[in-house]
Amino acid sequence: MTLRIAGLEAFEEQLERWITHFAGDSPVYDMVRYHFGLSDEGRRGKRLRPLLCLLVAQEEGGSADVALDAAIAVELLHNFSLIHDDIEDGDHLRHGRTTVWSRYGIAHGINAGDALSSMAYLALLENTAELPAERVVTMLSLLHQAQLEMCAGQGLDMAFEAAESVDLDAYLQMIEGKTAALFRATAQMGAVAAGTDGVRAAAYGELARLYGLAFQIQDDLLGIWGRSELTGKPCGADLRKRKWTYPVVWGIASGAADVARLYRRGRALGDDDVEAARIALERAGAQTAAEEALDRYLEQAELVARESHLDIGGGVRAFLAQGARRTA
Amino acid sequence: MTLRIAGLEAFEEQLERWITHFAGDSPVYDMVRYHFGLSDEGRRGKRLRPLLCLLVAQEEGGSADVALDAAIAVELLHNFSLIHDDIEDGDHLRHGRTTVWSRYGIAHGINAGDALSSMAYLALLENTAELPAERVVTMLSLLHQAQLEMCAGQGLDMAFEAAESVDLDAYLQMIEGKTAALFRATAQMGAVAAGTDGVRAAAYGELARLYGLAFQIQDDLLGIWGRSELTGKPCGADLRKRKWTYPVVWGIASGAADVARLYRRGRALGDDDVEAARIALERAGAQTAAEEALDRYLEQAELVARESHLDIGGGVRAFLAQGARRTA
Repeated sequence: MTLRIAGLEAFEEQLERWITHFAGDSPVYDMVRYHFGLSDEGRRGKRLRPLLCLLVAQEEGGSADVALDAAIAVELLHNFSLIHDDIEDGDHLRHGRTTVWSRYGIAHGINAGDALSSMAYLALLENTAELPAERVVTMLSLLHQAQLEMCAGQGLDMAFEAAESVDLDAYLQMIEGKTAALFRATAQMGAVAAGTDGVRAAAYGELARLYGLAFQIQDDLLGIWGRSELTGKPCGADLRKRKWTYPVVWGIASGAADVARLYRRGRALGDDDVEAARIALERAGAQTAAEEALDRYLEQAELVARESHLDIGGGVRAFLAQGARRTA
Repeated sequence: MTLRIAGLEAFEEQLERWITHFAGDSPVYDMVRYHFGLSDEGRRGKRLRPLLCLLVAQEEGGSADVALDAAIAVELLHNFSLIHDDIEDGDHLRHGRTTVWSRYGIAHGINAGDALSSMAYLALLENTAELPAERVVTMLSLLHQAQLEMCAGQGLDMAFEAAESVDLDAYLQMIEGKTAALFRATAQMGAVAAGTDGVRAAAYGELARLYGLAFQIQDDLLGIWGRSELTGKPCGADLRKRKWTYPVVWGIASGAADVARLYRRGRALGDDDVEAARIALERAGAQTAAEEALDRYLEQAELVARESHLDIGGGVRAFLAQGARRTA
């Protein structure tokens, strides 16, 4: 566990170095730096993805910094997507700070995200670990492919906003893109950085994909049942915004007619509506169903780990719990 | 000249193949395809960048398709920037068609641009020409670096909107990023694809950078003095929107007080204002000054070409004229 922390300390240093490395007479650089709020430790993101990347590389016998560029790239790409998602979702706050677009306007927000995505890939291309060009190309492919899948997932999620109903298959396809794709690429890149062969690297990717699905369902549960003082968001925030999350999709399919009616109304839910929807979902068994789905993905992940003899496998549950502790 | 056309025909085929290659159950793929309007030949972009890329590779002895992936990547990245610029600039029409954001909303517009940027880089990573990994890495670096510089330039350009005055150095820095960076990367990538060494590839880049600056100033001239039926934009469109273009920046610095006053008013110019500003700029000698600056960049480009024995050099003027004919 100490190595985890040592890895993350080097990561934070390198992250700050990389973001401040890009400078010039354009406001875009300041906006990117503003987004990260590096001076404000308490407000940082959870760094789950770089941690996963570094852990996999370490388990595969890579040296301490072999996957550092990959971890930086993944975290920057994640943050690029956050900057754009905040515009697309109309969110004004993230980690308790005003979002980039909310502070500088939509146009600069789009542009800052675009700049950050370049910085993400340039981190791999700078290649401080001096990996062979073939490994760099593989990692770049994985990350670009993940970006495309994230856009596909985000496009679906936004299309859901206007939908009268969403079926479970469509929901699962959405989170495959929106959440699981980057987790998969992250673990795979950690393995590739350490020199792992393609088949074994793909097994890490599959493990992380399942972990990502579990992580998203947990996030969905917290968006309905998480306590506001711990999630940092208003209580029942996802219900308020009529988000199509696992419990809602499952619940409506299983006869929670009150929730279906509230979602069909086409406007944000008030306090009473949120409470009514939550109770209706509980009665329909949606909370339990989501928890069971989450457990199934974790069990599948452990199976993948066992079958492919991946050492990180046993730690997946602890890793998820750690993510959950910080979120919940 | 026939080879140019043959190259561009293969390019159009490959472009269509590549865009339709990406498909899935997400609306984002349809939105990307909508942007290109491939079914509507008359409304296509000018394909100046892929043409430049293919020409350089051809001049360097590359086979017909050695730079095809690079040409695709460059054109897709250019279009990614158009999709986002249209949102940032609030433009509803491009090539006579409704812009992506105007048709699908800002959120989907941002997302479609993000997806398209992935497709651009994946075109290089797919590497159908089977180039060595080192060349692919070099081309990816050039394109990502160009994207970052484009964002820096766009950030400056947007910051100008709120400015009371803009000096010529800041303007030139803006167009270095916004326009010249991608031209430079384009030519350099064409050379790298053909196996040209780094120094000579950089000379092509420098040539194209100068060409890009000239191209932008020509675009600025057309935005004030271009005839509407030929530019496809309202007459004097840039003045109307109070854009800080070369003639305006130069003109105000040289005492065109009427233009300074109209720009300081902080709102769009009406028909009479546009006409008054145009006359004031002509009287201040701004049109002539811009034409001279354009010629200087072209002369510098020819000098670079001569000094480095670049064969495309003599054709730069014809190439620019071709771009101008189609725009003007």
